[in-house]
Amino acid sequence: MQPFIDFILELDKLKAVTRKTRPLGLDRYENSAEHSWQIAMLAVSLVDYAAEPVNVDRVVHMLLVHDVGEIDTGDTIVYAEDGWAERKAAERAAVVRIFGLLPEARAAHFIALWHEFEEGTTPEARFANAVDRAMPALQNLANHGQSWRENGITHARVVARIGPSIHAGCPELWAYVKAQLDEAENAGWFGSRR
Amino acid sequence: MQPFIDFILELDKLKAVTRKTRPLGLDRYENSAEHSWQIAMLAVSLVDYAAEPVNVDRVVHMLLVHDVGEIDTGDTIVYAEDGWAERKAAERAAVVRIFGLLPEARAAHFIALWHEFEEGTTPEARFANAVDRAMPALQNLANHGQSWRENGITHARVVARIGPSIHAGCPELWAYVKAQLDEAENAGWFGSRR
Repeated sequence: MQPFIDFILELDKLKAVTRKTRPLGLDRYENSAEHSWQIAMLAVSLVDYAAEPVNVDRVVHMLLVHDVGEIDTGDTIVYAEDGWAERKAAERAAVVRIFGLLPEARAAHFIALWHEFEEGTTPEARFANAVDRAMPALQNLANHGQSWRENGITHARVVARIGPSIHAGCPELWAYVKAQLDEAENAGWFGSRR
Repeated sequence: MQPFIDFILELDKLKAVTRKTRPLGLDRYENSAEHSWQIAMLAVSLVDYAAEPVNVDRVVHMLLVHDVGEIDTGDTIVYAEDGWAERKAAERAAVVRIFGLLPEARAAHFIALWHEFEEGTTPEARFANAVDRAMPALQNLANHGQSWRENGITHARVVARIGPSIHAGCPELWAYVKAQLDEAENAGWFGSRR
């Protein structure tokens, strides 16, 4: 039993990994653990809108594990311009370390889910990526562009960076988000390019 | 699309519901959203140790929704001595309100999962309850009894309150936790009855 206990207590550290978005009504930044929960709920809620038929359970499992590597690397805003290859290599090493606390078959199961999400080539991974990308945009839209303004992110950068993923996994969600982003641009909720 | 967006933003409020346990290494209290993520991970990790064969996906879905009613009611420490009937009635009303933001079929799906967890009569619900009860004990054991000492909870109260549920859903986990609780009692990590 001890390996499982060591593993689940190691996961406590994801609660200390802060993102750039603030939960509605709170002053603090969101952490990657509560974010993982919320996008799992978003995936279950929106499954009928997935671009292709998906096994929602595998989507949920992928979303639960997709950020675990951040325990070692920290979160990086999706709008970072470069350094992604190094960052992803570090996250890959991190998930091998963290899931490696578990017995081998269970570790392999979780690591495979993490890779499936990262590669984004299955219908499940495309839908999972879509909800992961959409969630902070939905929070920003409800927050008057809080993290876009704090980080100098333009409307064009948001559309270019999250649009293709959301559209590929959940086209109706992208249609909704895109219309809202355009309204937010008119409302002045975006940053200027720094 | 709007009902789904209203729903997922409403869920942001669970990130503001604080529990009595502190994540390891952090000064703040844990919230119910990150807790829900962690116990979903614990369930997937420990599924081979469930007392009976379970559909792990339904266990995960139950755990993701089981605390959503706390958005309206707040969290109550499991060791509270009374008031449970009123508290559960309030939570029931809350989940009807919150899941009711969604289209009817999706709302009914989530509400049914919430009831299954609360009733605890299926193998999946028993296993889900076991990991939910075990997690704060595991955190306290790693935290030198932080929330037991802060809230004056005795060893006897912990064993009586969480033992039957953990044993019913995951007997090997209970054997592990019970041995650790006994060591913690010798180490003086429990509160005195107030």
